[in-house]
Amino acid sequence: MSDTKFLQYVDEHKDDYIKRLAEAVAIPSVSGNLSYVKDVEAMGDFLLKQLIALGAKAEKKPIGTHTLEGKEVDLPPVIIGQLGNDPKKKTLLVYGHYDVQPALTEDGWLYPPFELTPDPNGSGRLYGRGATDDKGPVMGWLNVLEAHKNLGIELPVNLKMCFEGMEENGSVNLDKFIESEKDKFFAGVDCMCISDNYWLDTKTPCLTYGLRGITYYEIKVSGPDRDLHSGVFGGTVHEPMTDLISLMSKLVSQDGQILVPGIKDLIAPLTDDEKAKFEAIHFQIQDIHDAVGGDVTISNDTVNTLMSRMRNPSLSLHGIEGAFSAPGSKTVIPCCVKGKFSIRLVPNLTIAGVTDLVVKYVQDEFKKLGSKNKLEVYLTHGGEPWIADPEHYSYKAAHKATESVYGQAPDYTREGGSIPVTLDFANILNLNVLLLPMGRCDDGAHSTNEKIDTDNYIRGTKLLGTYMYELAAAHK
Amino acid sequence: MSDTKFLQYVDEHKDDYIKRLAEAVAIPSVSGNLSYVKDVEAMGDFLLKQLIALGAKAEKKPIGTHTLEGKEVDLPPVIIGQLGNDPKKKTLLVYGHYDVQPALTEDGWLYPPFELTPDPNGSGRLYGRGATDDKGPVMGWLNVLEAHKNLGIELPVNLKMCFEGMEENGSVNLDKFIESEKDKFFAGVDCMCISDNYWLDTKTPCLTYGLRGITYYEIKVSGPDRDLHSGVFGGTVHEPMTDLISLMSKLVSQDGQILVPGIKDLIAPLTDDEKAKFEAIHFQIQDIHDAVGGDVTISNDTVNTLMSRMRNPSLSLHGIEGAFSAPGSKTVIPCCVKGKFSIRLVPNLTIAGVTDLVVKYVQDEFKKLGSKNKLEVYLTHGGEPWIADPEHYSYKAAHKATESVYGQAPDYTREGGSIPVTLDFANILNLNVLLLPMGRCDDGAHSTNEKIDTDNYIRGTKLLGTYMYELAAAHK
Repeated sequence: MSDTKFLQYVDEHKDDYIKRLAEAVAIPSVSGNLSYVKDVEAMGDFLLKQLIALGAKAEKKPIGTHTLEGKEVDLPPVIIGQLGNDPKKKTLLVYGHYDVQPALTEDGWLYPPFELTPDPNGSGRLYGRGATDDKGPVMGWLNVLEAHKNLGIELPVNLKMCFEGMEENGSVNLDKFIESEKDKFFAGVDCMCISDNYWLDTKTPCLTYGLRGITYYEIKVSGPDRDLHSGVFGGTVHEPMTDLISLMSKLVSQDGQILVPGIKDLIAPLTDDEKAKFEAIHFQIQDIHDAVGGDVTISNDTVNTLMSRMRNPSLSLHGIEGAFSAPGSKTVIPCCVKGKFSIRLVPNLTIAGVTDLVVKYVQDEFKKLGSKNKLEVYLTHGGEPWIADPEHYSYKAAHKATESVYGQAPDYTREGGSIPVTLDFANILNLNVLLLPMGRCDDGAHSTNEKIDTDNYIRGTKLLGTYMYELAAAHK
Repeated sequence: MSDTKFLQYVDEHKDDYIKRLAEAVAIPSVSGNLSYVKDVEAMGDFLLKQLIALGAKAEKKPIGTHTLEGKEVDLPPVIIGQLGNDPKKKTLLVYGHYDVQPALTEDGWLYPPFELTPDPNGSGRLYGRGATDDKGPVMGWLNVLEAHKNLGIELPVNLKMCFEGMEENGSVNLDKFIESEKDKFFAGVDCMCISDNYWLDTKTPCLTYGLRGITYYEIKVSGPDRDLHSGVFGGTVHEPMTDLISLMSKLVSQDGQILVPGIKDLIAPLTDDEKAKFEAIHFQIQDIHDAVGGDVTISNDTVNTLMSRMRNPSLSLHGIEGAFSAPGSKTVIPCCVKGKFSIRLVPNLTIAGVTDLVVKYVQDEFKKLGSKNKLEVYLTHGGEPWIADPEHYSYKAAHKATESVYGQAPDYTREGGSIPVTLDFANILNLNVLLLPMGRCDDGAHSTNEKIDTDNYIRGTKLLGTYMYELAAAHK
């Protein structure tokens, strides 16, 4: 179900919609850089003005200050907007962000990053910083509002919108904002939709219903109180690097199995339904070889590989702080080294549970070494895993909308990485959250030559609108 | 045996000798820095002028050019000098260097580094860059010449001196110079003395008859062609860090034993005489705890510890290039990492022999991992170990001279690290080389607040002169 006038309007206003995205991209709203503070503010104002012009009750919400490059500055405000307040309709909450990653032409951009540039070869790609992350999706919602306003059609749901300007810089204070507005702006919300991730490939639309969490650890081994010369002291003292490398070698096997006892036992058992969803995903091992630039997959089985990415924990060794790390040769015995590794969490692993197991295991293994050095092992940060119920009516609605707009059922994917705001909304507001991506896997969010395909942007706009209609029609 | 007039002269001219050292320290002859090129040259000229004034036939020998901070400049010349050419006398070759390590007051110097400053507390310490490394010993030889010239006494040996200005920056081309002058300036040399190392403690004079060699290796593991996000790819690909850490963990045990098969079998057997020399060394475990700033010795046995430092090989893990090494957290899967380690060599280990064993072992262990990543393991540089015959008459002479000047027999030590010029002279000229240190273990060569104790400088001058007399009297 959808509104045919809406779909027709979108097709007829494609050029206007691209112009809207171009205006947004032209504002370099880089949140992590002091010299762009005014631009981030300008982008918030642009959004606010458009929302009001398109009929929303919208406002700027200050959320405090933070320190940027040593200077205390205002955090970019949260822009909230609301359209419709009909108790008979469902209320949908939408989230997006209006800030972007840094971008400099000299980093290797084909075109100026803050000028939306269509591929001159006619591929339909629209290049520009923020095109897909996350200005494309945010403009998609404005496009939906514009169509309905100009057609004089009421939205089928009550719409609440929450757009932040700090997503690329840690979403500072957003959790506090959600908490403080829980019973005010966010009151009465039925479900939520976030468009801030990507298809798994370049062809298949998907709904994303899970994210892995993370625990990040440091193992610190110290001994001497100064760095030593290996000629003078090699062979006579317990070297912290020898201990650390030994400990790090006991964390994960070559085929990616976590060696910390007890972690595997905590993983939620695989259900038939879950397995069926992984088996249905459109994905080939070649896709991953292309993505990493080499035939280095542990398994050549597609389903195994997808599950390793999406529903199994993993442990990666990231590096060592305090040891020699430059090109060339240095004959140092570092006196204090910190090994860094992280574990990706899946249900039912928790930060606390995994940390207990990791700390105990590393301490036990260190004792076995019989070293006179000192050990510390600790969590530096963590994020819990998240999973939504993909049988929720919001997912059913998005499924139908995808079939209607793309002519095919969506894949059901889970992301290997974290999107912390998802958890904040889901947990604080106790909501089902749907991740409904607009762009493709090769869009290059955070990278040079970020792009969105015109087809994804336009059909993505249709998808957001159609999803609203399906949601309105769905049985709670 | 010595000349009492010489010893008396030294005592009476202590202040002049300190003044000579002060003049030398005042020239900031830093060889590794383009802005000090003129100063290194000035220091060479200072030395040349003094040698000539003290009766030596001396000259500056150009040895080519090198690239310093991107600019092609002349290498500091070698200053050679000769005094006496009596076929009835033995001919002694002396080496020293007139360049120094960099030093900036702001690095933490108590006094301006290029002004020789006596400790105002009256400890007798003379602070200044180069005071002990190596201007003190070089001035020591000039002091000896001055005494003999002013006393009108002929030297008891023919003396050949070779002073370079590039020791702190790799002794570039010195080997070529030695080779080219082998049958010219260096012809007829009977034995050699180098004063460019240190006592093992602060109290006991020593003769040094061995140096460990070194082989430095990199293990390179590569797989993906770009760094990957551990959220997206953790668990699905063979991570180069996992492979590398596993390989590095198999190189050395916690108690410092090298795990590469075959290396232990190559170590020269310990002789009773050698063992006796180690047992006689004045050394306490507390000395090493003080030196490293912690109770982290593998063994608490003094002789074991000394042998681990001086006559056993050791393997140190220095670090990893290409992995995350900064403070903080980064969830990267590095695509290409290089593990760095070195092995200290002792007789009868050779660079070639050890490298064959290491490369084969690492390759074999990598095969066992079953990883799809790529491995390279290679030597980056090496230096052979060196050992002199401590029963040689030059050592006997130095032994007697030490007893005469210090009232005690010297310890016989070996250095854990390398002094590459020693090997060059020993091998090219086929000479017995005596390492006869002047300074103490805590002199801080290469460090801030480098110093030499006045007593070491003055008694060191006596030692060099007395050694000449004992050498003249020794039976070949």
